[in-house]
Amino acid sequence: MKINGIPYRTIWPAQEDQRIIRIIDQRHLPHRLIIEELTCVSDFVRAIRDMHVRGAGLIGATAAFGMYCAAANVPPGSSFEDYLKKSAEELLATRPTAKNLAWAVERQWQAIASGKGDKVKRAFSKACAIADEDAEFCRAIGRHGLKLIRAISEKKQGEPVNILTHCNAGWLAFVDYGSATAPIYAAHAEGIRVHVWVDETRPWLQGARLTAWELGQEGVPHTLIVDNTGGHLMQHGLVDMVIVGSDRTTCTGDVANKIGTYLKALAAKDCKVPFYVALPSSTFDWEIHDGLKEIPIEKRSGREVKYISGKSGESVEEVLIAPEDTPAANYAFDVTPARLVTGLITERGVIAADEEAILGLFPEKR
Amino acid sequence: MKINGIPYRTIWPAQEDQRIIRIIDQRHLPHRLIIEELTCVSDFVRAIRDMHVRGAGLIGATAAFGMYCAAANVPPGSSFEDYLKKSAEELLATRPTAKNLAWAVERQWQAIASGKGDKVKRAFSKACAIADEDAEFCRAIGRHGLKLIRAISEKKQGEPVNILTHCNAGWLAFVDYGSATAPIYAAHAEGIRVHVWVDETRPWLQGARLTAWELGQEGVPHTLIVDNTGGHLMQHGLVDMVIVGSDRTTCTGDVANKIGTYLKALAAKDCKVPFYVALPSSTFDWEIHDGLKEIPIEKRSGREVKYISGKSGESVEEVLIAPEDTPAANYAFDVTPARLVTGLITERGVIAADEEAILGLFPEKR
Repeated sequence: MKINGIPYRTIWPAQEDQRIIRIIDQRHLPHRLIIEELTCVSDFVRAIRDMHVRGAGLIGATAAFGMYCAAANVPPGSSFEDYLKKSAEELLATRPTAKNLAWAVERQWQAIASGKGDKVKRAFSKACAIADEDAEFCRAIGRHGLKLIRAISEKKQGEPVNILTHCNAGWLAFVDYGSATAPIYAAHAEGIRVHVWVDETRPWLQGARLTAWELGQEGVPHTLIVDNTGGHLMQHGLVDMVIVGSDRTTCTGDVANKIGTYLKALAAKDCKVPFYVALPSSTFDWEIHDGLKEIPIEKRSGREVKYISGKSGESVEEVLIAPEDTPAANYAFDVTPARLVTGLITERGVIAADEEAILGLFPEKR
Repeated sequence: MKINGIPYRTIWPAQEDQRIIRIIDQRHLPHRLIIEELTCVSDFVRAIRDMHVRGAGLIGATAAFGMYCAAANVPPGSSFEDYLKKSAEELLATRPTAKNLAWAVERQWQAIASGKGDKVKRAFSKACAIADEDAEFCRAIGRHGLKLIRAISEKKQGEPVNILTHCNAGWLAFVDYGSATAPIYAAHAEGIRVHVWVDETRPWLQGARLTAWELGQEGVPHTLIVDNTGGHLMQHGLVDMVIVGSDRTTCTGDVANKIGTYLKALAAKDCKVPFYVALPSSTFDWEIHDGLKEIPIEKRSGREVKYISGKSGESVEEVLIAPEDTPAANYAFDVTPARLVTGLITERGVIAADEEAILGLFPEKR
């Protein structure tokens, strides 16, 4: 998608030297656009752990390039296998909830272990393929989700379709297009009138900082709200549909996503508003059946709750919003049970959030 | 309750000169304790509208003192009646959702209009009586709510009772004790182990700034969380009960309270966690029956969403958290339907949130 009119992806190898991988350091958005260069495994580990990059697909793609970088930079005297294994473990430890992370590392592991020719070249090709596939899957999600938006638009006789989204499942969370935003961008490109309610998404404010920014860059009408507001809007008929992303989805349709998603799903159910989850299949966890019991929920530092950064004059500063000694807890995700999900928008089509429908669309996983 | 060990109320006449009314200017908490003096009606209007004071009971008590101040300061040449009427209208226009505001102004109006002796003295006595009654009602709410906490504590064999609260319905929202916090303070004073999950409560951060601070001052164990977290905690058995306050409650039990309350009530229902609303009877609106349709919801400036103030070094600063040109909407309250409320904790006892039970406890309103 575009920044100041220029097309970008969220991660790409430098044209002049493919040993350098470039990312947008998202910690500085929307106030500053800073491109960061990653050249060694510890750069990748830090970028994922400290959220220079975040979001299901982008975490996966970054880990894939991280594995390529490990393969390309085995220190003299180290065993290739041992160094790759250690790097994989370091990457996997960064974010426990994100499924795409393990999926991408595993794919790289397979690609490097088997196949002909130079291992480093194979790893580079695989990383690029994972990134391209992520973008392609998101584009397909947009195509399928567009039909849902178009149907509501027709029912409303062209009045704007009000879509609520939580966190950033935008193009900044993937390599391009986004998951939850892909249908929105597709609808907007087709001239369908849409308006997005953007949950600010505390504590990290992905909605206020990233979703509002990328929708603004693409010219999609939107309004920023605090996370508390969605229920009230739904009670009063001001939301036509909810679309969120996912960090891990069980094969039974339970959805781990940014903390607070469950509350919006409850309100949608109570107010009879359709609640959709958009995800590429790389986000499915085919091994587990009970999301609430089995998906590990990342706990991050309470500091992210107590300190908020933002723009003050020309500089970016951090302010303390609570008494200095107040204890704070920071759960990063929650799990929305399948019973609250109207449908899953995947790259292969829209399906019900249940095992039968999911395995029907992905029969190779039976 | 206490600040640095010294007992305070949130509003009081100066001992040396009762023409001066003192308040804690809550905009500066928790970073600074600033006492403000109010001496003319426009001071009171500004204090309520710009949230130097906030919270159901305190808005009422402040309006009552504001009416006294109007009676005491009729400009030369003005008619007493006209000036009082104009002042009442200005006070009533400050916050549309708060029921206690209209209730207090109406009581003052009656007190000034009827009765013997000096009108200004009557207005002063009535304002003091309204403030005393508010504190007394909150103490009674504490006594009744304490029984609910004690029962859970006994069932948990003395393990801490985990109570989630939203916004600040603490002593800072009333004249003393608070509504939602009164049972908590009563339990803590009795040696019952409690732990409070404090919703930070965006956009104004009443939880992070006020509830965390007052619980800390009273030594009550607590943990600050973002508003998105409560659902996850309830899903995992980490909340034993929810207690919130109310800004207006219909005689049918629908509850207007800080935006986001409805989402917590939905989660409590889904997770079978008891959901209580604590309120003095001054918060009831006896005239309306459908909270969702009939309670006016205040819309405040979107600026409160986009800018957050906090401590930076030794100063208090404001930071912008979104792109500068992002549109933002700021609904201050939502309505929780009676069907989601386990019970109402009033100064007369705990009752179901339905018309029969409410009018049973307040038969004079039949």
